[in-house]
Amino acid sequence: MKFNKLLDTMPIYEAGKPIDLIARKYGINKKNIIKLASNENPFGTSLKVITKIKSSMNEMFRYPDDSMYELKNSLSKKFNVNKSNIIIGAGSDQIIEICVQAKCDKKSTVLMANTTFAMYEISAKKVGAKIIKTKDDEHNLEQLFDLYEKHGADIIFLCLPNNPLGECLDKNDVYAFLKKISKKTLVVVDGVYQEYASFKDKNKLINASDLITKFPNCIYLGSFSKAYGLGGMRIGYGIADKNIINTLNKVRNPFNVSTLALIAANEALKDEDFVNKTIKSNFNEMLRYEEFAKKKDIEYIDSYTNFIIYKFGNKFDSKILSEKLLKKGIILRDLSSYKMNAIRITIGTNKQNTKVLEVLNKLLK
Amino acid sequence: MKFNKLLDTMPIYEAGKPIDLIARKYGINKKNIIKLASNENPFGTSLKVITKIKSSMNEMFRYPDDSMYELKNSLSKKFNVNKSNIIIGAGSDQIIEICVQAKCDKKSTVLMANTTFAMYEISAKKVGAKIIKTKDDEHNLEQLFDLYEKHGADIIFLCLPNNPLGECLDKNDVYAFLKKISKKTLVVVDGVYQEYASFKDKNKLINASDLITKFPNCIYLGSFSKAYGLGGMRIGYGIADKNIINTLNKVRNPFNVSTLALIAANEALKDEDFVNKTIKSNFNEMLRYEEFAKKKDIEYIDSYTNFIIYKFGNKFDSKILSEKLLKKGIILRDLSSYKMNAIRITIGTNKQNTKVLEVLNKLLK
Repeated sequence: MKFNKLLDTMPIYEAGKPIDLIARKYGINKKNIIKLASNENPFGTSLKVITKIKSSMNEMFRYPDDSMYELKNSLSKKFNVNKSNIIIGAGSDQIIEICVQAKCDKKSTVLMANTTFAMYEISAKKVGAKIIKTKDDEHNLEQLFDLYEKHGADIIFLCLPNNPLGECLDKNDVYAFLKKISKKTLVVVDGVYQEYASFKDKNKLINASDLITKFPNCIYLGSFSKAYGLGGMRIGYGIADKNIINTLNKVRNPFNVSTLALIAANEALKDEDFVNKTIKSNFNEMLRYEEFAKKKDIEYIDSYTNFIIYKFGNKFDSKILSEKLLKKGIILRDLSSYKMNAIRITIGTNKQNTKVLEVLNKLLK
Repeated sequence: MKFNKLLDTMPIYEAGKPIDLIARKYGINKKNIIKLASNENPFGTSLKVITKIKSSMNEMFRYPDDSMYELKNSLSKKFNVNKSNIIIGAGSDQIIEICVQAKCDKKSTVLMANTTFAMYEISAKKVGAKIIKTKDDEHNLEQLFDLYEKHGADIIFLCLPNNPLGECLDKNDVYAFLKKISKKTLVVVDGVYQEYASFKDKNKLINASDLITKFPNCIYLGSFSKAYGLGGMRIGYGIADKNIINTLNKVRNPFNVSTLALIAANEALKDEDFVNKTIKSNFNEMLRYEEFAKKKDIEYIDSYTNFIIYKFGNKFDSKILSEKLLKKGIILRDLSSYKMNAIRITIGTNKQNTKVLEVLNKLLK
């Protein structure tokens, strides 16, 4: 049977390895496995959310409220935008895909940094769009603008801060760039790790309401998967001009987010203490990874997220190291699928990090 | 900003109205609202599933196992197929969309009954495929084959039994039809209500394993949203030849189903008593709606599902009736979005049905 030719060259997203798989493969007790591979919240989920979900069991049989009234209400207050400015997706990656489907086809051009979130490229390839990347791995606005002038762009992706590298552009630089971009181009400002970046440095803060008012061709993306501790629930959001949202909603399928995810996200927004505790611990613990890297003379990128990159150059091999770590029950993210000899470490709890650094200390010799 | 032209004429799926909306709009206490509009399980969710989910709260922060190992294992045993024959979606409607994206573009032709599940048409329109429908509302295999000979088809949709009408083709007739269809055509056999149909009449039973062995160009779809009581969790599955599944997995996004949905579905498969109780009650209670229709001289379709259609001809107006019902806190499904002057009633619990029939008795005069 023949399928769309586009699929012949489709890359497959390489996800962080699940704990169960490693437990089966290496015969390790699940409880002894540390997974710091998918930038999940090491503190798990807020107790307030857990309590709320436990009392919502009689909602599982019902289709979700497809208007997503309650959650849009809460997000509109948090971000000072109208409900009509908001779209909810099964993770922000679903909104990325919806943007690409709404805006692009085989004749389109999509522009992004050389090393950035893999789903931008995967979504663009699915519709056969031309993908243009900068020479630099990290976001380089000059290079992006040069490429924009040369090739044009139907969509530009900016990941602020950038996954999987961790660097983050300043808001002022981003705004200066956006001023030069045609209003016909959709600019996706992916703020999935913004809670972390804006805590570390106020110059990184992108205010969604201000962004879409000044640049009505932008969509801001946020997530409940990271600081809000709901990675397994699959829920994220987009904030944009209502004309963009109306169009995206034509692509969005009904009931794209589960009933419990809507309830959990809405409750998670009420527990800012949990988010603050998460982020404070994150940057305290990150210092330990920075110190370790300095001690071992390993290159790392100053990170505005909940993860850190170790680049190995010709010192170590990230694939071999990751395999060795797996055998010891530690799951980190080998970045060879991003064509980098590097690993990405999600910042864990104090106890997890102690163990990981101890094992890394033995292996990186 | 310009978007894909295809979206200009995109229909929007009209979902069953959520309880909260009706409560707000008409000032009715939520507890007094009866929603029999979305073919949800009136008994809610199995207690075994609820217990399991309550003990899985520490899984919410983790991204799902994207290999979906446990659930595929259970499904492979239930259906006597390999894990490589299974794809899991956020509802079977996501798998419908994936099939269309994998197989179709603007040059494709998609064939279906005149009145069938709305998402077939919506998915096909999104990729710009040509949609061919039979003259008859219900599935008519002769008409489908005539159209197939005339126009060809990249995908044929068979909804067995059919939502929103409720009728169901016999397996033998389906097989005789499939024998005449080219192996280049993907035939989607949507069995979302098969648990109901095969209980009522064994001649309706489509065995997924037998189907895909005899017809490797078919994909069988199933759901946890109906008999399994998990409509809000968004989870369904497709069973097909592994070459088809491999290709569909290229279109499927990673983490398309939530962690809790995977756990709930796996647990739901273990509680067949709950499913049996659901289906037995369903057909006992449906007799009451049939009797009522006969008494009132209302046309209905013999249903193999958990809902029944009342066709009003020129006797009543389904829109006006639905509005009157809403004011009394009863949500049924007006089928005017399917261009029918009819309502679809999900079979509720004994108590719900008593109330609905009482109110209908007053309004249908």
